[in-house]
Amino acid sequence: MPFRAPVSEFQFLFENVIDFARVTETERFADADSDVVDAILTEAGRMCEEVMYPVQRNGDLQGAVLENGVVRTSPGFGDAYRKVAEGGWISTSAGAEFGGMGLPHAITTAVNEMMAAACLSLQLNPLMTQGQIEALEHHSSDEIKALYLPKLISGEWSGTMNLTEPAAGSDVGALRSKAEPNGDGTYAVSGQKIYISWGDNDFTENVCHLVLARLPDGAPGTKGISLFMVPKFLPDDTGAPGVANNLKVVSLEHKLGLHGSPTAVMQYDGATGWLIGAAHDGMRAMFTMMNNARLGVGGQGIGTAEGAYQHALAYALERKQGRSPFEGGTGTIMDHADVRRMLTTMKAEIYAARAIEMSCAVAIDMGTATGDKDWKARAAFLTPIAKAFGTDTGIAVAETGVQVHGGMGFIEETGAAQYARDVRVTAIYEGTNGIQSMDLVGRKLMDGGEAAYALLDEIEECAESVRDNMADLAEPVWQATETLREATEWMVTQEMNERFAGSVPFLKGFARVLGGYFHLRAAIAEQGNGPRSKLARFYITRLLPEHAGCLAHAVQGANDLYALSPEELGAV
Amino acid sequence: MPFRAPVSEFQFLFENVIDFARVTETERFADADSDVVDAILTEAGRMCEEVMYPVQRNGDLQGAVLENGVVRTSPGFGDAYRKVAEGGWISTSAGAEFGGMGLPHAITTAVNEMMAAACLSLQLNPLMTQGQIEALEHHSSDEIKALYLPKLISGEWSGTMNLTEPAAGSDVGALRSKAEPNGDGTYAVSGQKIYISWGDNDFTENVCHLVLARLPDGAPGTKGISLFMVPKFLPDDTGAPGVANNLKVVSLEHKLGLHGSPTAVMQYDGATGWLIGAAHDGMRAMFTMMNNARLGVGGQGIGTAEGAYQHALAYALERKQGRSPFEGGTGTIMDHADVRRMLTTMKAEIYAARAIEMSCAVAIDMGTATGDKDWKARAAFLTPIAKAFGTDTGIAVAETGVQVHGGMGFIEETGAAQYARDVRVTAIYEGTNGIQSMDLVGRKLMDGGEAAYALLDEIEECAESVRDNMADLAEPVWQATETLREATEWMVTQEMNERFAGSVPFLKGFARVLGGYFHLRAAIAEQGNGPRSKLARFYITRLLPEHAGCLAHAVQGANDLYALSPEELGAV
Repeated sequence: MPFRAPVSEFQFLFENVIDFARVTETERFADADSDVVDAILTEAGRMCEEVMYPVQRNGDLQGAVLENGVVRTSPGFGDAYRKVAEGGWISTSAGAEFGGMGLPHAITTAVNEMMAAACLSLQLNPLMTQGQIEALEHHSSDEIKALYLPKLISGEWSGTMNLTEPAAGSDVGALRSKAEPNGDGTYAVSGQKIYISWGDNDFTENVCHLVLARLPDGAPGTKGISLFMVPKFLPDDTGAPGVANNLKVVSLEHKLGLHGSPTAVMQYDGATGWLIGAAHDGMRAMFTMMNNARLGVGGQGIGTAEGAYQHALAYALERKQGRSPFEGGTGTIMDHADVRRMLTTMKAEIYAARAIEMSCAVAIDMGTATGDKDWKARAAFLTPIAKAFGTDTGIAVAETGVQVHGGMGFIEETGAAQYARDVRVTAIYEGTNGIQSMDLVGRKLMDGGEAAYALLDEIEECAESVRDNMADLAEPVWQATETLREATEWMVTQEMNERFAGSVPFLKGFARVLGGYFHLRAAIAEQGNGPRSKLARFYITRLLPEHAGCLAHAVQGANDLYALSPEELGAV
Repeated sequence: MPFRAPVSEFQFLFENVIDFARVTETERFADADSDVVDAILTEAGRMCEEVMYPVQRNGDLQGAVLENGVVRTSPGFGDAYRKVAEGGWISTSAGAEFGGMGLPHAITTAVNEMMAAACLSLQLNPLMTQGQIEALEHHSSDEIKALYLPKLISGEWSGTMNLTEPAAGSDVGALRSKAEPNGDGTYAVSGQKIYISWGDNDFTENVCHLVLARLPDGAPGTKGISLFMVPKFLPDDTGAPGVANNLKVVSLEHKLGLHGSPTAVMQYDGATGWLIGAAHDGMRAMFTMMNNARLGVGGQGIGTAEGAYQHALAYALERKQGRSPFEGGTGTIMDHADVRRMLTTMKAEIYAARAIEMSCAVAIDMGTATGDKDWKARAAFLTPIAKAFGTDTGIAVAETGVQVHGGMGFIEETGAAQYARDVRVTAIYEGTNGIQSMDLVGRKLMDGGEAAYALLDEIEECAESVRDNMADLAEPVWQATETLREATEWMVTQEMNERFAGSVPFLKGFARVLGGYFHLRAAIAEQGNGPRSKLARFYITRLLPEHAGCLAHAVQGANDLYALSPEELGAV
């Protein structure tokens, strides 16, 4: 079953739903007109279909292994990676100064998502590198930029992020890794880091680790953390990889999925590193890279959903079983209402999650191009929603894909289960979805709800504009937005832990309403007639109603969560 | 982390929630008083903790393999099985005439669920045997009963169900396996069967296959299917396993989970079989065994949820991370509201699913003991809900368990992922959950809704009885029941395919309301004060509201599902 990159889906969003024209109207991204968008998406789509998708199963069946201290990657990954790099796909948003294309992040987001759909485990490699490029562009010295950026942008070298330690996961500030000045401007970095995605590989010349560690005079907690560039091979005078640094891969994790992506335990023993940004200011640089990485992980969820959806649809179209419930049926399981319900749900959810993702990317671009604080706030507000809803959608859609396969879904040979296993981690890494929701109701509502209300106003204006001729779609969206407004008003008045007690269902409810909005916009673009309007009607009548349950759950406060003692929770 | 069997949870249900006293009041089950219940549950719980749980991980890490045509099971499985059998736990409901205990199915259901929690892959073996025992008790000749039942009940032999073929899954009637009379009262059975759970093993003396096949004069479709007993070894004159039958395991499936349970492709080449029940009447016998097996599979979901919950709770109680949001916190992730929300949700859902399961078992017992058609209708109505909601709960709770573990959840060593992988098949086998929901809105509403309304009346009467002193719990349950009544009224007036278009969300909505009812009854038993009342309040305020979204989804009819053409669904 061949994979087809969802190029036309993105084109529709770019042209009709996410207000991308605004981005093109800025000076910064004036070149990114619709011809450029079409050309890039089409070319990227072809690469995903022809280069990445063919190695997707290999990544699962013959995962990366550690042999005598060396990581050996899955068959075909090296060749595929080199073609990805040669095509310029490592980072289409990297600045032109060091060889990048300087395209809007919206385009990169679309490309990343298609790459994730084609081969999630390989896509994670350039996604990590992109974050590193961004951190270096914003925070590193000119020397570091000149040395590392061209190699990272070309894909000759790859990048990693080293945050987590055994006792420092969600609580990054608890980390114990240390950095001591060597006296020559470099630092000796020591410590153990875990869950390092693509901690090593056998196809890039060098692997560049960005490592969080504490200087001798660093305060405890997040405020005393600094960021260091610690390459696998120290660049020699010509900038080529020279002697090996004092670091190694201790082991690779045995994971539920994503076997093609080596997840390393890294050991640094006085490895040579260079400070990135100011001393003790590492968290700020890390957040630069983490925000967009969060959107990127949301896209991983949506891309995997796309792959799982296509896989399930192809199966349903060919699997003959049961009597058709009507005359003239095909005899395949596509005739059955419940199979249709599953597939249509998958498609409607993917559309909703993708539109949220892409409008977040547009807000990032608008913030970058204009410096406008409202756009920056919009981007910051949408990021945790895009990440959590995108990855929850990835998990739900992949699970439904397994179910569409019936008994075959449980058999690994069909490949349906791989999507479900691979995507599972996306709800965990780059900040668990619980952390995303706490970010949403905490930091992202610190403005008193301003960014949230601006979004709700926009939705209601849109719904009101078509209240007369599309009432059946506009009215439920407007009503749902009002319910969401009430829940948001409740949130902003509460102490933090009261908010946290409902943060996950709040985020889900918010995403449900946003999904309704973007489906409505698709219907408006079609003037209510066409396949996207039918999909919008499906979503708005069948899935949007869930928002009420989510938001009722969201505003209960924390008391009942602590009412049961640990002993009572454990009593059996 | 040791597993503790949820004996006290069952005791509470038996004494307070599921009206088990009615069962004990019947002549048939007069011996099953509370002392017996307590003794059996306690003893079974100990066996689960000491015998089955210790081999649970082995089943995953060293799954069953086929070596030179012989199935080799996981380390420790043979010993554990023998202890299970020696303890009399293969089937506590089997009749005393052939060595069984003749206990109510409610007790067996509780024991089965605890066994599933301890080691799902091993538990599936006796669960299959139980179904076979029941089919033979109801449909086989005295000779077959005398020969097979003592061996099956003692566990010396085990049983399988052979329904599925490559082109006959949900549509059993499409099967191609054949049976030809041998002229001596036996039949030559030929064909290939797939997905045969525990199709072979290396610890029982014989494996007894119940095989669906068509006689030469069998009509096409389900009406021409007959059932045959086809043992691995033909019993000799003394009843001992003699010469090998003409059947073999072709291969074992490579599955997402449940690796300890060998899932076989079976080949029958003129294997000797004995007709069970009348010719062409095989489906009726199969349904006897399938109905209770469906409840049993629901229990597999709930048991796995229990195991996953205990696993996650233990992790949360010891994992130190982040700053406690309040003074005097433990420093573990248990302090965090969202972790509490996840764990409390898991516990509340397990309670709801278990109460549904157990009240279905009580209805089965009442039907058996009294022959009353209303009890039989109640049991039939609750079975698909118990199966689908039990297994959906198993999947959801195991997934949440992974999430509670954070990054460790994705690492196989922790064991959290095993629960999620193992339980996934329970939503697929024994009739997918889609099939269950079609059964609910189709066959189970053929009475015009009588069984459903009787249940809704019971809920409303209960809610009304405590409307004054427990209004905050009773009122939402009453209201939700009214909403469910409206959706049920809609269903019974519709053509079949209109019902099917909303059958899955209808079943989910029905289960949500039933969960509210049983939580309310727990609170009533505690007079509103105590841990179960707190859990009831959590469920009723946070989870019950989901019913409205489910039921809105349920009553949309089929048109919108067929509005998008396959091409439009596929367009990318």
